[in-house]
Amino acid sequence: MASDPLSITFAALADPTRRAILARLATGGEATVNELAEPFDISLQAVSKHLKVLKAAGLILRGSNAQYRPCRLESEPLDNAVEWIDRYRTVWKDRFDRLGDHLRLIQQQAADAAPTTAATTAQTTAQQEQPQ
Amino acid sequence: MASDPLSITFAALADPTRRAILARLATGGEATVNELAEPFDISLQAVSKHLKVLKAAGLILRGSNAQYRPCRLESEPLDNAVEWIDRYRTVWKDRFDRLGDHLRLIQQQAADAAPTTAATTAQTTAQQEQPQ
Repeated sequence: MASDPLSITFAALADPTRRAILARLATGGEATVNELAEPFDISLQAVSKHLKVLKAAGLILRGSNAQYRPCRLESEPLDNAVEWIDRYRTVWKDRFDRLGDHLRLIQQQAADAAPTTAATTAQTTAQQEQPQ
Repeated sequence: MASDPLSITFAALADPTRRAILARLATGGEATVNELAEPFDISLQAVSKHLKVLKAAGLILRGSNAQYRPCRLESEPLDNAVEWIDRYRTVWKDRFDRLGDHLRLIQQQAADAAPTTAATTAQTTAQQEQPQ
């Protein structure tokens, strides 16, 4: 597995339970492991394992209270993840927009040229149909 | 590995070579496997494997030309990934903003109360300092 910060962030987000934990922390604020484990049909140990992955990715911070150690969301890695995606998504969309503009220009040029072409075709046909 | 679409997208993004391939397709447009492999010090086979992961995640489309099969970026999974992150990032930032507002209010209330407290203290001190 890649060990650069962005890869670690994306890998941590690549699990529905971990995303649900982050969603819970974002909407409900700080929570203990027991509180976070409640909605899931998995063991406390499995939840702890997910929290370790999220903590290693810097996506959560854990309090120093030895007994409870509440977790809270840390948004900087999410900011970096969105920044990366947006950079290329924007470039790609701009490219599509430019392609769209170019296609519209070609269509417009074709439409502008069409009456002349139609007239020329009609004239040619008429000439061909004239009795020799 | 989780098999829901968002998890598959994030897992596909969790690799620097795959992100570099997407960046190349976003900035340079369609490219063949050979063109995509050029900047990397890895085998064509390894690049093909990465392309398979990106294709399975719906992040790239491959042309039907049997010989070249050019690849191009598909942005819908990226849109969904950003949408997910932004939803919770926004909630989390709003929470912090509200906390900030609340702290400022407390500080303001403390500041408003301070002169009275200082005056009372000064008065008390003055009373205590008066010769009995």
